[in-house]
Formats: sequence, structure tokens, C-alpha cells
Amino acid sequence: MLILYHQPFSPACRFIRLVLAEYGVRHELVLEKHWERRKGFLAMNPAATLPVAVENDGPPVVGAGPIMEYLDETRGYAQGEKRLMPDHPDRRAETRRLVEWFLWKFDEEAVGHFVHERIYKLEMPTAMGGGAPESTILRAARANLRHHMRYMEYLTATRNWLAGDRLTFADLAAAAELSCTDYLGEVPWSDSEHVKTWYARIKSRPAFRSLLAETIRGLPPSPSYDDLDF
Amino acid sequence: MLILYHQPFSPACRFIRLVLAEYGVRHELVLEKHWERRKGFLAMNPAATLPVAVENDGPPVVGAGPIMEYLDETRGYAQGEKRLMPDHPDRRAETRRLVEWFLWKFDEEAVGHFVHERIYKLEMPTAMGGGAPESTILRAARANLRHHMRYMEYLTATRNWLAGDRLTFADLAAAAELSCTDYLGEVPWSDSEHVKTWYARIKSRPAFRSLLAETIRGLPPSPSYDDLDF
Repeated sequence: MLILYHQPFSPACRFIRLVLAEYGVRHELVLEKHWERRKGFLAMNPAATLPVAVENDGPPVVGAGPIMEYLDETRGYAQGEKRLMPDHPDRRAETRRLVEWFLWKFDEEAVGHFVHERIYKLEMPTAMGGGAPESTILRAARANLRHHMRYMEYLTATRNWLAGDRLTFADLAAAAELSCTDYLGEVPWSDSEHVKTWYARIKSRPAFRSLLAETIRGLPPSPSYDDLDF
Repeated sequence: MLILYHQPFSPACRFIRLVLAEYGVRHELVLEKHWERRKGFLAMNPAATLPVAVENDGPPVVGAGPIMEYLDETRGYAQGEKRLMPDHPDRRAETRRLVEWFLWKFDEEAVGHFVHERIYKLEMPTAMGGGAPESTILRAARANLRHHMRYMEYLTATRNWLAGDRLTFADLAAAAELSCTDYLGEVPWSDSEHVKTWYARIKSRPAFRSLLAETIRGLPPSPSYDDLDF
């Protein structure tokens, strides 16, 4: 059995949950309030970041990138045509570039700020940095989001899936980041026709269902969030 | 032929240069002033970051992580015992965790600030952010560096190499980051006995030679930089 330490609105955790669902990996989710820096959690991951996976009491597999590679190495081959990592080294490189782009750059410049300011800070004690969102940070994140949407619009207008002809890890990474942004009603869908069509395709996959069912107490999702024909 | 777009004191680029040397890959280095955001460079990598590799006029392979995986996929198997990626998925995960730790976390919290403030800003025009280093940033980077040195001291005291028994990509990533820090005389060697012994072993490898020969006009290296018995 694989255990995934996660937060429901961490985009990197959602990415791994989508991979687990697509690859049909039986798993258990354990909620980790990573900002509390629990001792047992720090022993697994001194960086105190999520996600962390542990399989059959083995050593921790730390971080979305390493977990993605681990799942592909241990289950990818058996997926046949549905493998989320392409076969050719060039295509694999493009998939990995985009996964990094979305999980690091898109997250650091936009999505991570929305999640931190509008979701985590609701639950964090004041002494740990909780409280009201900083409007200057949200404004900057919204401006950055518009740049990122333009890049995604270019990718989805010129390719069938983000990294090329087939669905890959890159699509799930991008969709995981967008899903948190969309919950908060922060995605400017009206300017992003191709992104919208691409996201509707991803969102209707069975793997997405459990994510769309999650809500936050006192913060209902935007109307588009769980609507497959938004 | 493989072309690597790089900066001589970018730790991520130095990491890939070490990998290329260890794997015996014939290559050409092209200096890219990534802060100029050259149009042809942005077309290869819209994130405008280094390193970027291009092999035989193929598509660009972007970023140190994807280039590492690419080189291992295309050359790793032929290295036999000298392969820098372990065979077991658990050990591969630990190697990748540490590569991310050093290239992202260590770089963002410490090394990247030294390089940006003390090296890149020397060469960047004022309009692009060049000028004198910010002493508050350097102070924070030095404080963070001490935490990172303690973690490296723990790793090198308890393991033969950073990710376990064998030399892996993790050692080269850490050494690449340290080499830039050491050039600037910023490494507190006196408190880091095990890191020092480990680094001396890495530094004496032939792959390291071309890095140690590089200097910056007007900014000579610290006395320990190219001394193998520092």
C-alpha cells in the first residue's frame, strides 16, 4: 500500500493524486499540516514540503517530481498506450520541462500565492503566519496569472495535449494547478478559449472526480469549479 | 554534437558540465547572457533560464533536471558501475530529492543570491538590475548557508556519498553549488569537517578541472577555490 501525505488544495499533491488515479494505484491519503513542521514529518522530509509518498514502509519518496518518476518507473511500463511519460528522450524532456514549469514557475508566480493567501492562511494559526490575505500579493499573482494563461493558450492552440500528441504528466501538472485556481474563481476563462477546451477534456476524466468533490468550509467553490460544461 | 547554453558561474550549468565530463559527452559550450532575454534564446526556453542543451539540432532540452534525466536515459546504461543514477527506484528517488534540494532550495535560499549579487550584477547593465550587491540579501544568504552546511555535514557524516554508497547526480549538484560559493570565499569550511572531506574527493575528480580553471575579471577566487588540499 502507498501512503500519500498531502494537503487537499496543494497543487503538487493534486498532481500526484491524479497520477495515482490514472495509473490505478491503490493508496491512502494522510492529511499533513506541513506548516506545523511535525517532527515525524521533518524526519521524512527536512524541507517540510508536500507531497511525500511512502510505499510498503519503504523510505519516503519526497516531492512531486521524484514521486512522478517513481510511479512511472514502477508502474509506467504496464500502462502501455496510457503511459503518461512519452517514450522518446526528446518528448520526455519536453514533458519534464512543462511539469517543472507548472509545478515550480506557475506555482511560485501565481497559483501558490492564491493557495497560501486564500486557503492555507484560513487554517494556519496567527503565530504561524495565518490571517487575512495580503491584497498586494494577490494583485501581483493575478497579473502573473494572465501571462501564464497566454502561454497555456499558445500551447493548447498549437498542440493536441500540452507536451504534444498524447496526454502526459504535463497535462496533469497544469490541470492540478488550474483546479486550485479555479476553485477560488481566479481563472480568467473568457480570454482563454483553447485552455478552456483542453481543461474541460481533462476535468471530465474519472481521475478528476475526487478532486472536484472536495470543498473548504466557509469558502464554497466558484460556479465553474465542478461544472464540466463551464 | 551537444551544445550547452550556459553561464560559467551558474551552479545548475556547472552541474550539467560535471555530468557531461563524467559521462564523457563531447560538447560545445555557448555563453548565454540569459538576463538579456535574447529572442532566439526565449524561443528555446520561454522561462529564460539556464542551462539549455541542444543535441544534433534536435529540440531544446530545458533545465538541469530534464537535462540530467536526458543524459542518463541516452548515456547512463553504457556507464555500467559509473552510472550516476542508482538502479533501485527508492535510491533513484533519494538522488532526485537531493538534486532538487541543492539546485532549487539551496540555490534559492543561499547560493543563487551570492551568484546574482556578487557575480551577475557585475556584468549586468544598471537598467537590467546590475550594480553593487545588496548587503541585506547577502546577510540573509549567509545565515541560510549555515543551516544548509549543517544539513550537508549530517549527510556527509552518515553516508559515503550524499545519496548513499555510490557517487550520484546528487553529489555533483551539491558540489556545483558549493564551487560557486567557494569561489567567492563564502563557505564556512572550519565548521564543516565532513563536508570538506567529501568536497575534496569530488574536487579532485578530472571532471572538476575545467571549472576550477575559470576566473572572473576583477574578482579573483578565494584561496581555497582551486586548492585540492584546502
